[in-house]
Amino acid sequence: MAQDIPNTAKQWNVTTQDGKDGFNALQFSEKAVPDVGDSQVLVKLHAASLNYRDLIITLGKYPFHTIPDVVPGSDGAGTVIAIGQHVTRFKPGDKVVTLFNQEHIGGPVNAEASRSGLGGAIHGTLRSVGAFNEQGLVRMPENLTPVEAATLPCAGLTAWNALFGLADNQVVAGQWVLTQGTGGVSIFALQFAKAAGAKVIATTGSNEKATVLKELGADHVINYNETPDWGAVAKNLTGGIGVDHVVEVAGPKSMAQSLAAIKISGVVTIIGFVGGHAKDQPGFLDCLTNLCTVRGILVGSRAQMEDMCRAIEANPERLRPVVDKKLFRLEEVKDAYEYQWSGKHFGKVCVQIE
Amino acid sequence: MAQDIPNTAKQWNVTTQDGKDGFNALQFSEKAVPDVGDSQVLVKLHAASLNYRDLIITLGKYPFHTIPDVVPGSDGAGTVIAIGQHVTRFKPGDKVVTLFNQEHIGGPVNAEASRSGLGGAIHGTLRSVGAFNEQGLVRMPENLTPVEAATLPCAGLTAWNALFGLADNQVVAGQWVLTQGTGGVSIFALQFAKAAGAKVIATTGSNEKATVLKELGADHVINYNETPDWGAVAKNLTGGIGVDHVVEVAGPKSMAQSLAAIKISGVVTIIGFVGGHAKDQPGFLDCLTNLCTVRGILVGSRAQMEDMCRAIEANPERLRPVVDKKLFRLEEVKDAYEYQWSGKHFGKVCVQIE
Amino acid sequence: MAQDIPNTAKQWNVTTQDGKDGFNALQFSEKAVPDVGDSQVLVKLHAASLNYRDLIITLGKYPFHTIPDVVPGSDGAGTVIAIGQHVTRFKPGDKVVTLFNQEHIGGPVNAEASRSGLGGAIHGTLRSVGAFNEQGLVRMPENLTPVEAATLPCAGLTAWNALFGLADNQVVAGQWVLTQGTGGVSIFALQFAKAAGAKVIATTGSNEKATVLKELGADHVINYNETPDWGAVAKNLTGGIGVDHVVEVAGPKSMAQSLAAIKISGVVTIIGFVGGHAKDQPGFLDCLTNLCTVRGILVGSRAQMEDMCRAIEANPERLRPVVDKKLFRLEEVKDAYEYQWSGKHFGKVCVQIE
Amino acid sequence: MAQDIPNTAKQWNVTTQDGKDGFNALQFSEKAVPDVGDSQVLVKLHAASLNYRDLIITLGKYPFHTIPDVVPGSDGAGTVIAIGQHVTRFKPGDKVVTLFNQEHIGGPVNAEASRSGLGGAIHGTLRSVGAFNEQGLVRMPENLTPVEAATLPCAGLTAWNALFGLADNQVVAGQWVLTQGTGGVSIFALQFAKAAGAKVIATTGSNEKATVLKELGADHVINYNETPDWGAVAKNLTGGIGVDHVVEVAGPKSMAQSLAAIKISGVVTIIGFVGGHAKDQPGFLDCLTNLCTVRGILVGSRAQMEDMCRAIEANPERLRPVVDKKLFRLEEVKDAYEYQWSGKHFGKVCVQIE
Repeated sequence: MAQDIPNTAKQWNVTTQDGKDGFNALQFSEKAVPDVGDSQVLVKLHAASLNYRDLIITLGKYPFHTIPDVVPGSDGAGTVIAIGQHVTRFKPGDKVVTLFNQEHIGGPVNAEASRSGLGGAIHGTLRSVGAFNEQGLVRMPENLTPVEAATLPCAGLTAWNALFGLADNQVVAGQWVLTQGTGGVSIFALQFAKAAGAKVIATTGSNEKATVLKELGADHVINYNETPDWGAVAKNLTGGIGVDHVVEVAGPKSMAQSLAAIKISGVVTIIGFVGGHAKDQPGFLDCLTNLCTVRGILVGSRAQMEDMCRAIEANPERLRPVVDKKLFRLEEVKDAYEYQWSGKHFGKVCVQIE
Repeated sequence: MAQDIPNTAKQWNVTTQDGKDGFNALQFSEKAVPDVGDSQVLVKLHAASLNYRDLIITLGKYPFHTIPDVVPGSDGAGTVIAIGQHVTRFKPGDKVVTLFNQEHIGGPVNAEASRSGLGGAIHGTLRSVGAFNEQGLVRMPENLTPVEAATLPCAGLTAWNALFGLADNQVVAGQWVLTQGTGGVSIFALQFAKAAGAKVIATTGSNEKATVLKELGADHVINYNETPDWGAVAKNLTGGIGVDHVVEVAGPKSMAQSLAAIKISGVVTIIGFVGGHAKDQPGFLDCLTNLCTVRGILVGSRAQMEDMCRAIEANPERLRPVVDKKLFRLEEVKDAYEYQWSGKHFGKVCVQIE
Repeated sequence: MAQDIPNTAKQWNVTTQDGKDGFNALQFSEKAVPDVGDSQVLVKLHAASLNYRDLIITLGKYPFHTIPDVVPGSDGAGTVIAIGQHVTRFKPGDKVVTLFNQEHIGGPVNAEASRSGLGGAIHGTLRSVGAFNEQGLVRMPENLTPVEAATLPCAGLTAWNALFGLADNQVVAGQWVLTQGTGGVSIFALQFAKAAGAKVIATTGSNEKATVLKELGADHVINYNETPDWGAVAKNLTGGIGVDHVVEVAGPKSMAQSLAAIKISGVVTIIGFVGGHAKDQPGFLDCLTNLCTVRGILVGSRAQMEDMCRAIEANPERLRPVVDKKLFRLEEVKDAYEYQWSGKHFGKVCVQIE
Repeated sequence: MAQDIPNTAKQWNVTTQDGKDGFNALQFSEKAVPDVGDSQVLVKLHAASLNYRDLIITLGKYPFHTIPDVVPGSDGAGTVIAIGQHVTRFKPGDKVVTLFNQEHIGGPVNAEASRSGLGGAIHGTLRSVGAFNEQGLVRMPENLTPVEAATLPCAGLTAWNALFGLADNQVVAGQWVLTQGTGGVSIFALQFAKAAGAKVIATTGSNEKATVLKELGADHVINYNETPDWGAVAKNLTGGIGVDHVVEVAGPKSMAQSLAAIKISGVVTIIGFVGGHAKDQPGFLDCLTNLCTVRGILVGSRAQMEDMCRAIEANPERLRPVVDKKLFRLEEVKDAYEYQWSGKHFGKVCVQIE
């Protein structure tokens, strides 16, 4: 049941995780292609995309468990080239995207599922061939290239979960969604919200980026450098009622503004590690003053990922993933990390594998 | 706190409800403007729209309670001209739309709320001035004319509730929605589904109407006269998985096709009285075979109506109500009833009041 | 439609709200019985219960809007003695309990409903006769005395909403619920959780109160004075998984422990003003580390109150409200405020009116 | 990683599925113990329980796909004796219960998960040793015997899903639940509903069984032979409002009564094949008249099963599974099938394996 299986695979490993080597902890090698377990699928990877998480794992700043010498990479897209004897979900030739938390199939995340992330607890996607449990893969949306599809597993799915993951308050047409900046999750959240008929207020620190955010569909863009009290300004834009959803990525400083923007019974979804745990962040009791819900999420489930992929296929124009113009080869992963670290990118930084 | 309150109001009444007089049960008169109760709002009505329910009340075929000599009309839009002393939600000059079930404020419908429908249990909208409890009105979407707004309370809100009213399975981008025919609810369902990024399969018996349905955004249109097994055909269009939602309006015959089209864990929402209770309808146990949910709904709540109005304001191009080209004056209500009964209309049949 | 309507009513008013008079801001008088509006119900009040909120309104520390000279009292129970001409929900002789937010009928709370609280935005229950909109009352559970019923509108409903108000995570049998202390909300939460088949961990600072908490059904009681790291201890009691729900009432210091106790995908509901906004409270970003949801609530809706009253009637032994042994007369309201302020009570402090 | 692995296993197979052999289609043999795949767990089975489905598979009347020579048995409990090299969820010595739909991990059921039922699409539990994917097992509740635990996978989980599986309308304390007869699902539904603080109306055709139903906690029991219009009688018992939930197991004839009993916005969950598709069943359009929701379900997910097991551990007295007094050995499976077919049992018919 195999086809074109190479003998060897190229791969990166994170050889140290104490941060002292910086990105030089990443080492490149060629190894034998892994065996395919009875319930596994062997995937020739075509593309991966980078996430902030990948960088801080290498720099030793990631607060969760990772295995030694882990193959990094949280996101990937490729083609099935062999399957184990118990596999029923895929056959060789199928195009697939990886699921981030390999054991998060459906329903709310639990402790077990939260410890099954690719590129941390399990070997990831920055390699030319990988073996994955058949449950941890999803069919690639037909209208995307592998590079585009490789942006979905973390950034796309996190944004999807933020907007549609709470049954009590899913985004519907007419609601107001506030997104922050131009990171991967924020851009996906903007696109998904617009595809759902919502109104979007996006923040950014750059007038150039503001232009692109408008092109992507933002109804209003606020420059947070020029408008430090952007929370109150956003609330005013809604007629004084407040926004229904905030996708909070920017850290402690922005949280006070998010609370100023949120509507009674609205939801702030916290998704990012970006800014650390500063002392000047607002405290939980402000939930009461604002009568809002604050929700921490960790990417999302396979069921949600399948829903998201359908949405992308159904809305090919509105939901085309935004990929940074600079594309890297597998051999250039360290350069890609440096580039993402520099913050000069717009959209997802991607690695084309082969 | 009043402005321009007329002394008299023109109104229709349903004088008999045993059906023997046909639409001649409708009688027109001029009466004193009603008193405004402490918690009531006096509304000068500008427009109303007709529903199948209004016709069968007059014809004596409506299965639920109605008051004697009821003022007909389930839908209306107008301007507040006076308010009672306890009123806090509105002031004279406000543009409003009526809520159908006057006591259905939020949450699931209960027995009490189900018995508070305008034009049946409570005097309705086919009059020039009416007094309504302040809780039973909603602000008119700013971008609509009163005629357009008058289509919302029944047809619009029923479609909205069908698609977004079940927390377990709200329509999201990428889902498949099946609508039936070109009645008011079906057209709104098509529009709301497209505004939410869903894919729509619409059925119709006419190739002319098929063209208009495509213009309104339907991804596929099936002519049920040419394709009697349209349920299976619809399922095929989804890649064999089935549609996520059916908005079932057409009666017992179509239900078997709806079940052929529905996906496992999909939802069929039943909203119409149109076709009677034929013996050839499928039975409930087919829910088990299809592992689907079937839900009977009665319009929707004020909270849902407010959400819907926001969606309309946020998506003015996609969500413009479809009004039939023939417009009637208040004096011509009988002609309007005959016209709607003839089935020659496309979109909502409306009455311009003044 | 009236019966036994007195000419005058005794009532308290909060005459100043700047705190300088302490509880002497409360003044007692006898006035004409209020008129009954068309949509109003006149209620002879039999009992009221006190809430922390009532105390701080009088002391000028309440952060939300209140009307001048407000009649205090957030909770009340009584008998309908007259109804306005438009009233349909009640008739004279009906036993009723007041709804706290008079406009929160169903669905999520919004700005409008949040500004309709008795004893603050609207005249409250510390009087012998009051007129209320018919929508703002609920039938009294048949098995309760008026004094017992008067504990429900704030403390009972807040606890109910905390446990059952989020569709994504309602308490079901087998879940773990953590309650804090022996205030009204906490005791109701303990009782409701046990009636639902959940396991309860209760905290307290007193070994005497621990005994009573056990008698009320607590599976485990932790003395937070003896066990300052009670969050981790609670998590251990669940087998290391964490509790599903925390009803957080105690303020910033306890929040860090609540987060130590909470399970992944668990819910912390914040309900109290008790402890102020200290600087040492944990910040929102901890939601991410704990992957939990934090929800601020404001009592609950009429639909929820009706559900709660049914639960109480169905479980008369498990759900009997806990009333402090010291009962006050209407004339003794200041003493009642002092007693509640002293913290010597166990269960709800109640006022028997007549 | 193995312990005490036998060389051979005893097992039943369904050798024909056209019904012509009756229960003689069942054949018993001793075979080599199956290999353990990389993601599989080898389980020594201690007990199984029978379901109506098992009988009709053998009789050739089951409407869904089954594999040839399938090992029957939908329910089982046992001990892990070996694990594959990729297994992380279990270790030898763990006590486990099987999940019915082996691929239904969490969230709503889909086509894929619906085709993974033990004893039909996948080899089942009527054998002494079986290999199962590690994802398809759940830890056994600590307080149950293997025989008791073997009643959970189908009957228990179906009842749990019926009562708690719809976020829009989970059973909470005070609601009314109607159960039908004394089959496995119905008794579990009665027990779970009582453990949740609900009120239960149970139907039965026997006054003897009525006594046992009362002992199990039913608030009211109706003998449907003596009271053919038991639907209306049940509605009366609720004060004329109707029951919140019906667990519908008895087939077309009872459905009309269930609809007479259901409350507006109530839920009828259809779970059984028992009575066939008679022509006299009510049709779907009655959903509209009754404004209720009808939901077909297929057992439930692993996440739900884990929740149910916690509930059982937390409520050991209220939730002890009811096992028929007659217990069978593995060699006596045909007798067990005949006994269950005879309808003489009360509670689950179980097979003790070894």
